[in-house]
Amino acid sequence: MDADTLDHETRLGEGDHEALRVWLRLLTCTNLIEAAIRADLRSEFDVTLPRFDLMAQLYRHPEGLKMGELSQRLMVTGGNVTGIADQLETEGLVTREAHALDRRSFVISLTAAGRRAFAKMAARHEEWVAGLLHGLADTERHDLFKLLGRLKSTIKATP
Amino acid sequence: MDADTLDHETRLGEGDHEALRVWLRLLTCTNLIEAAIRADLRSEFDVTLPRFDLMAQLYRHPEGLKMGELSQRLMVTGGNVTGIADQLETEGLVTREAHALDRRSFVISLTAAGRRAFAKMAARHEEWVAGLLHGLADTERHDLFKLLGRLKSTIKATP
Repeated sequence: MDADTLDHETRLGEGDHEALRVWLRLLTCTNLIEAAIRADLRSEFDVTLPRFDLMAQLYRHPEGLKMGELSQRLMVTGGNVTGIADQLETEGLVTREAHALDRRSFVISLTAAGRRAFAKMAARHEEWVAGLLHGLADTERHDLFKLLGRLKSTIKATP
Repeated sequence: MDADTLDHETRLGEGDHEALRVWLRLLTCTNLIEAAIRADLRSEFDVTLPRFDLMAQLYRHPEGLKMGELSQRLMVTGGNVTGIADQLETEGLVTREAHALDRRSFVISLTAAGRRAFAKMAARHEEWVAGLLHGLADTERHDLFKLLGRLKSTIKATP
């Protein structure tokens, strides 16, 4: 801890320090869960998290998504969207159609086989997540859900 | 919602659903805060989040870190560790020295200028995070901190 830091830190109030500690803990929890899910997807389905994430977004939009919309909706980083979509198309899990109004852009959607494949993974994914949170009491899980909801709206309300 | 999913979902209990909702909310909050910090680092310091993250790890280890240790400690993904380290070296913010015991590996550490540069960014970073969480009451922030601590130890205890 050098003099610079001490100066900066003493200028901040106790609540500010705790805010930073909340953020680091939030990030740590996210990283731990993400790593566990990544490993489970790999070992059980030989699938990457970005691929699972991409299929999840398409599953929620049966009408299909444009490439750009799809990229914006992804929850995890690091995947090559075009590469994953190409691969899924080769495997018959997605189709690509010209957009009805904008002929230059394509709409991607899951095929019936793609929906079935995703539903199977999603069910296991839900079990893994439940397993990771299993050590929390019902009230703790519930309070955490509520507080994260408060956090989410607070962040969104920040200018 | 197709038949497959309904089947899977009805097999799960209410708590399992909530666990998944907690995870998605956690991920959303992490993504929102990360995006805000990314934008602030960019506009105020013209620095990427992976670069900030890398400097943060080195700041916590004044004795320096081997390249491999550094990669493992990073909290965010998507950065090119070698590329960032090269760039920081060019700017005189890190040094690279042969490891005392293992001459084939290098130890990277922040220079005095690097420590000063990071301390300045870290202080602003703490203010940004405090600003993002400002809408939470003290008790909410405190309860969230405690519950995330419970979540963290629960995940780590999961086999």
